[in-house]
Amino acid sequence: MALIVQKYGGTSVGSTERIKNVARRVAHFAKQGHRLVVVVSAMSGETNRLLALAKELSASPNPRELDVVAATGEQVTIGLLAIALEAIGLRARSYTGGQVRVLTDDAYTKARILEIDQAAMRRDLDAGTVVVVAGFQGVDAAGNITTLGRGGSDTSAVALAAALAADECQIYTDVDGVYTTDPRIVPEARRLDRVTFEEMLEMASLGSKVLQIRSVEFAGKYKVKLRVLSSFEEPEASGPGTLITYEEDEDMEQAIISGIAFQRDEAKITLMGVEDRPGIAAAILGTVAAANIDVDMIVQNIGASGMTDFSFTVNRNEYAKALEALKAANGKAFVARDIVGDNRIAKVSVVGIGMKSHVGIASRMFRALADENINIQMISTSEIKISVVIDEKYLELAVRVLHRAFELEKAAGEVA
Amino acid sequence: MALIVQKYGGTSVGSTERIKNVARRVAHFAKQGHRLVVVVSAMSGETNRLLALAKELSASPNPRELDVVAATGEQVTIGLLAIALEAIGLRARSYTGGQVRVLTDDAYTKARILEIDQAAMRRDLDAGTVVVVAGFQGVDAAGNITTLGRGGSDTSAVALAAALAADECQIYTDVDGVYTTDPRIVPEARRLDRVTFEEMLEMASLGSKVLQIRSVEFAGKYKVKLRVLSSFEEPEASGPGTLITYEEDEDMEQAIISGIAFQRDEAKITLMGVEDRPGIAAAILGTVAAANIDVDMIVQNIGASGMTDFSFTVNRNEYAKALEALKAANGKAFVARDIVGDNRIAKVSVVGIGMKSHVGIASRMFRALADENINIQMISTSEIKISVVIDEKYLELAVRVLHRAFELEKAAGEVA
Repeated sequence: MALIVQKYGGTSVGSTERIKNVARRVAHFAKQGHRLVVVVSAMSGETNRLLALAKELSASPNPRELDVVAATGEQVTIGLLAIALEAIGLRARSYTGGQVRVLTDDAYTKARILEIDQAAMRRDLDAGTVVVVAGFQGVDAAGNITTLGRGGSDTSAVALAAALAADECQIYTDVDGVYTTDPRIVPEARRLDRVTFEEMLEMASLGSKVLQIRSVEFAGKYKVKLRVLSSFEEPEASGPGTLITYEEDEDMEQAIISGIAFQRDEAKITLMGVEDRPGIAAAILGTVAAANIDVDMIVQNIGASGMTDFSFTVNRNEYAKALEALKAANGKAFVARDIVGDNRIAKVSVVGIGMKSHVGIASRMFRALADENINIQMISTSEIKISVVIDEKYLELAVRVLHRAFELEKAAGEVA
Repeated sequence: MALIVQKYGGTSVGSTERIKNVARRVAHFAKQGHRLVVVVSAMSGETNRLLALAKELSASPNPRELDVVAATGEQVTIGLLAIALEAIGLRARSYTGGQVRVLTDDAYTKARILEIDQAAMRRDLDAGTVVVVAGFQGVDAAGNITTLGRGGSDTSAVALAAALAADECQIYTDVDGVYTTDPRIVPEARRLDRVTFEEMLEMASLGSKVLQIRSVEFAGKYKVKLRVLSSFEEPEASGPGTLITYEEDEDMEQAIISGIAFQRDEAKITLMGVEDRPGIAAAILGTVAAANIDVDMIVQNIGASGMTDFSFTVNRNEYAKALEALKAANGKAFVARDIVGDNRIAKVSVVGIGMKSHVGIASRMFRALADENINIQMISTSEIKISVVIDEKYLELAVRVLHRAFELEKAAGEVA
């Protein structure tokens, strides 16, 4: 008799046939006596279709209005799923973000959830009604429609699970779990039975597209039990997927490296010859942040004679904008001898919670890349990952050699 | 410096190119200093697409959820139009029905407007912002999304014009005004410069699809100045359309007959041999009303020997349901010897405010039909219209001969 939040992405609800499948899966759980909150995305292709219409009208559409348009995608799905559930004898009730009330800030197209009102959902759940909620959207304090940005439906699901103190949050997708890397690049890639939040966080941010990063942060923060499953199997025949666990819960032997993550659409920018003084990084990144551009890796070496080079990576779509903003600010907010960049790079990372207690991971990684003559342009490390920036043309090769170097095709425990 | 409510239907916003045209027309009025509230429908085809999805999931979709799905059509248009307006330098802000707050009852798929909150719109209008409102929708007191039923965007526009005490409510459509009849049937059909509310009411209910009936009732009740115009002409070259006036305002010479209206999708039901006693009509119609079916014409003749026949017409789509409900109630709510029907009928009406003070209209009408051997099955009259039910195969012929019989191809004043 658990309370389960299930989330179905765009491909899982991509047609009325697929929506019927989702309804059958929900019914399967409901018949076991579970109480269900189902979060859905827009039907696949719908968000792109809507955004394309907006782009036909304006090169830079008003973001408030863009959210008004985009939010309809999920609204269609909630109504259709509720209809499908009622058609097979369940009681169901749909909620837009505003109807739940998922309160967000007013950062249109990338809003953050501030608060979720559970009152209405609780009433329905107590009455045995399946609650169907539009992912990806909310309202700000003034009642304006907001969206959480691409992939935000995962975040909606986790936030709802946290608010309702759900027993489990199940993310249904077109894969049956989290893999050691993308199986399209490495056929031997293996499904992980479990992965820690910290690893998942690194995997998500580095391009394992299974879960949206903010949803993993949220889940970790509120200790939501998160499971990734496939919606393309029959409900009765579903595998266990991948459970995302907390490091501290973990007492079984942990693999050193869990997976190889990567990110294609990156660009790097280097400010050459900036003064090596306190506040310089803040001045540079402040300029980028003011242009509303997210920065990923940041690298700064110790400089010689009071000067240093400062590099960072951004999403490729924001490369031109970032470069422009920095060139405009050069000589004012900071002084750089030159500002250069490259938008044909990719990032590859090895991720693993076990890395912390093992030496030699970095050298094994760099050695594997060197053996294939892949030049490393930037390096950045955290407690549980090592990332390198390379020429994007070597991306697939790098992922394959690293997967082999860390013997990820073997199950945990088998690795030397 | 007028306050104008403009309404654009589905074909007027049927593509991004058409939405740009609407934006240019709005800009044309805004530049003259007018304050504008623009009400829009879903892009043409969109509502049907959405309802078809719902029908794929259930033969009788849950009406609350149907409204959740259907309401997205207009929501897309408001966002897109606001984007288009901002793109050409106007300030614009979109409102869903719930955001305005258009409060309705909770009769999903055919809700009625109870109250409109003008506060937010006023603020925007005072700030020089164009207000873009989703037609066809509202929210009930509990915050559920409702729709006003097909064509309800006209009603939204008139209700907003009434609430805001707008100087004029302009309904843009794919025709340039109200015609004496459908030009596809009678090529000589003529645009009317003005038509009274009463006539328009009869025309709308009888099938002149220019304006939705409830919007005309609303406009009459709240004395909203209503004008029908074409959105397919250049703003600068627009004709005057057709102004809908109040009878009492009218001092110019009035044509006896303004137009020939017709309704194709009708069915008639006759209860034979029912007792001719007080309360019998209420018992029969109560049964139909309880099945949520609207009745159009109602005819009852004086009966012989205490028995009478009772006939009425319904929309063809509801024919089977009405027949079933009546047969189930026969012998309980009332007693009828037999219940028969015909779903291949049509209704043709002559409409004219001038009819009141002229005799001989009915005989001219019946004579014209008799000359073509068209049998009249039912007759119903009001102060300003005469309607007949005929076999649907004679519909076009009947409309043509009546248009000719009343010389509607000639302008008012020319008629003998």
